[in-house]
Amino acid sequence: MAGLGRAFALSATAIHAHPGVILVAGAEPNSEHRRSFEKTFDAKTYSDVSNLVTDPDVEVVYVSTPHGLHKEHALAAINAGKSVLIEKPMTVSLEDASSLIETAKKAGVQIIVGPSHSFDGPVKLAEALIAKGKIGRVRMIHALYATDFLYRPRTASELSTDLGGGVVFSQAVHQVDLVRRLAGVPAQRVTARTGGVWDADRPTEGAYSMLIDFNEGIFASLTYSGYAHFDGDRLMENTTELGISKSDEFKSARKILESVQNESEFKSSRGFSSLETCPQAQTHEHFGQVFVFGDRGDLRLTPNGVEITDANGPEFYPAPFRTSRAEVFDTLYAALREQTPPLQNGKWGRASLEICHALLTSSETGDTVTLNYQEG
Amino acid sequence: MAGLGRAFALSATAIHAHPGVILVAGAEPNSEHRRSFEKTFDAKTYSDVSNLVTDPDVEVVYVSTPHGLHKEHALAAINAGKSVLIEKPMTVSLEDASSLIETAKKAGVQIIVGPSHSFDGPVKLAEALIAKGKIGRVRMIHALYATDFLYRPRTASELSTDLGGGVVFSQAVHQVDLVRRLAGVPAQRVTARTGGVWDADRPTEGAYSMLIDFNEGIFASLTYSGYAHFDGDRLMENTTELGISKSDEFKSARKILESVQNESEFKSSRGFSSLETCPQAQTHEHFGQVFVFGDRGDLRLTPNGVEITDANGPEFYPAPFRTSRAEVFDTLYAALREQTPPLQNGKWGRASLEICHALLTSSETGDTVTLNYQEG
Repeated sequence: MAGLGRAFALSATAIHAHPGVILVAGAEPNSEHRRSFEKTFDAKTYSDVSNLVTDPDVEVVYVSTPHGLHKEHALAAINAGKSVLIEKPMTVSLEDASSLIETAKKAGVQIIVGPSHSFDGPVKLAEALIAKGKIGRVRMIHALYATDFLYRPRTASELSTDLGGGVVFSQAVHQVDLVRRLAGVPAQRVTARTGGVWDADRPTEGAYSMLIDFNEGIFASLTYSGYAHFDGDRLMENTTELGISKSDEFKSARKILESVQNESEFKSSRGFSSLETCPQAQTHEHFGQVFVFGDRGDLRLTPNGVEITDANGPEFYPAPFRTSRAEVFDTLYAALREQTPPLQNGKWGRASLEICHALLTSSETGDTVTLNYQEG
Repeated sequence: MAGLGRAFALSATAIHAHPGVILVAGAEPNSEHRRSFEKTFDAKTYSDVSNLVTDPDVEVVYVSTPHGLHKEHALAAINAGKSVLIEKPMTVSLEDASSLIETAKKAGVQIIVGPSHSFDGPVKLAEALIAKGKIGRVRMIHALYATDFLYRPRTASELSTDLGGGVVFSQAVHQVDLVRRLAGVPAQRVTARTGGVWDADRPTEGAYSMLIDFNEGIFASLTYSGYAHFDGDRLMENTTELGISKSDEFKSARKILESVQNESEFKSSRGFSSLETCPQAQTHEHFGQVFVFGDRGDLRLTPNGVEITDANGPEFYPAPFRTSRAEVFDTLYAALREQTPPLQNGKWGRASLEICHALLTSSETGDTVTLNYQEG
């Protein structure tokens, strides 16, 4: 583990439960998180990623450090001959993504970009049902999610678009990833609007609407607000993005934030402390309302699976649930032990990243942006 | 009434109940509908609109004939010195819309374009709550509706885009109308995709996604499928577009259509026969899921009113209900008797029509289309 912060805390349960993965070492500047990690997993720790990657017991490095450090840490691992699982976005710039892909190829190691919501059990099941022809030809995809993302505790870099912060690199990348998986064909062009910075106190993009043109005439509309007061989880059976049932009590992230003295410190305190304090999902994770409209039926994601409505009415297909994110580590295991090429490889991650950049460019210029890194 | 078909049947209850409107005459080629009209309203009928408009008892003509005839019938009424209420779309071509506006201006009569869902009680209430500052500055609007529109019984012209058929002129015009009312400022540009004709047996556009740029940086995403198997009313408290509670039983418009021998005749049989057989709404009409995201809160339409979520949580504002479409005839009455200029006047109707044409053009060319008829 490179990074024992919030991102690791969200994956720890899945890693711990997965029969194919052993946590042997972790790197993290925060000594408290290091101690918690050592104690919980009976594993080594390092304060610096450079020492982690050369540890001979380490076979694959999961890079869950801040977005702006993904490139440096992934490159260190690749150069040490290790495959990498890199949190989305794989890097901030497209050039860095290309450089990682190139270096990994030369080193003969693999890149997997995840976790992202394209790994969610219901998305995987939907892909399989579409491939089976359950809804006929895919025509149109629609995705909507509304959260208080921008008002959760953030570090300064998480609020700087240039450093990979804001909803485009943190959230659009999820929605794009899962919509791409459902479309099943390469994207061609992007037209998008963010409205810029809505709140000068959080100086990054916090919302967007986007049209994506895919091959075969498929098109998708994606809308997200991280400024939302409305709770988008109400459209998802009152289940959080992390797969946890919600109480009816309304919580305002803005009000909670007002009571926080040092936001960056508070965010840092939410790193790994124990398995018991990690979020315990009861269902799959989700990323809000998602519909796929096909010639013979329409598909809707739920936290528990997939609902397909055709001429005979709606039918529900449950997606088998172990832990949230189990599918990420299935993919990792299959890539390293079973020679199964991962869908979400380096080129996949770069393609989603390119769409994020296109989102920003299209919104700035008002023009439609043609994509160049979507094939293969 | 010019036209006693399905459109009139959907408005008859509201007209009959409205204290400011008296039905004095109706024109309709179908003699059965004429007889039903005479009997129910103790009113005159004509087989031809040209005789209706010159009837001295007629003060205002409600044009609810097929889209392709709106221009001819509205023009006849205007030339006879009568104000007109024209079903959306006011005409098929922009030129015809401009010509109606010009002629009405010279004749000193009014044009109101409706009914459309921009008249719905919750939309009107939402406009008022936004004007009061309840959600702060409006930033982003989102609208989604999924219906089986294309598989309801249709005449040939209703399935011909050139004749004003298809979902763009029949359904997008609703969504555009209500989104424009909620945005509260002129639209600037449109980027849209329809995917063309998905079903060669119904040779017109049946679905779309569209981005609209408005003044003040507001943007809106609108998505509609009239090919849907999924029932979009499930996102609206299981209430139909017409404000009627739905049973849980699934009905497939495609299957019903298969059992129909002569589709055009069947459609014609759904014209006016009695007040009792007209749809009886229990709530306001609606046009699917609609969100307005503002700086201080988010607004969501329901069939009964408006829900606003701000930092204190969700609050529901009921919209007073009399009959569905009562607001259309309030507007008509206020325009003619109280010198209250209608929002949905000729220029308003042309602006929505222009966006429908831009939707088609943008989808054909792939380009963003700049709008020219949105001011005033």
